[in-house]
Amino acid sequence: MAQADSVRQVNAAFYRAFESLELAQMEKIWHRAPHITCIHPGWRPLSGWGPIMNSWEQIFASAFEVKVEVAEVQFTMDRGLAVIVVEETLTQRDYDGVSRATVLATNVFELVGAQWMLILHHGSPVAMAPDAVPRVQ
Amino acid sequence: MAQADSVRQVNAAFYRAFESLELAQMEKIWHRAPHITCIHPGWRPLSGWGPIMNSWEQIFASAFEVKVEVAEVQFTMDRGLAVIVVEETLTQRDYDGVSRATVLATNVFELVGAQWMLILHHGSPVAMAPDAVPRVQ
Repeated sequence: MAQADSVRQVNAAFYRAFESLELAQMEKIWHRAPHITCIHPGWRPLSGWGPIMNSWEQIFASAFEVKVEVAEVQFTMDRGLAVIVVEETLTQRDYDGVSRATVLATNVFELVGAQWMLILHHGSPVAMAPDAVPRVQ
Repeated sequence: MAQADSVRQVNAAFYRAFESLELAQMEKIWHRAPHITCIHPGWRPLSGWGPIMNSWEQIFASAFEVKVEVAEVQFTMDRGLAVIVVEETLTQRDYDGVSRATVLATNVFELVGAQWMLILHHGSPVAMAPDAVPRVQ
């Protein structure tokens, strides 16, 4: 299988792990290394295995059901590093009912032995219409 | 110079270009290629040279002065691809007065010939305190 396909498979597995709401599934996706980083939409960055897995545990505990549709925005890779930018359409059901949200995410994968593993997930909210005029921040 | 230093220099040059409010400076940083992507905080993704440069032109036109302090959160690189996650502390002065904001950014650089060039800027707002409990989105 081409390496690009392998990267996309692991990216898809990340979203299946998200939907599973099972920490054991999410643990299989991430590289267990000190330099991993996770930015949930609106959050400050989390670094390292403990804080990142703890955050997913909290997220999974607060949700009844999550569905994520993923559309690829950008894909770039080199020998041992791959970057995928996606637009996530999230549908979640929790104590507050059902809600939908659009999230942009940059996912970075590192080739560890023969396995592509997630080392960065940077998710961010989409607040502005496509034709709106930006401010600096 | 080590390649990691070169990448960090170009990353610093990106922020100096931002502060310069001059499009010609920003044009030197980006790779003029179809696969470049820029996500301003809260915006939908922009792809390609024209839309991205147009967005910077709008941003520069609306600001009188911008200062960006940058703290590195994560750095990873391979032979021809490098990823830097930073926390930006932005101070801007425009028609509405002076404002400060914290932005998280993932910047991805590609080695083009002997020059590292920006191919992805993904900026996102920080809305939540570090000790807050997350929601799924």
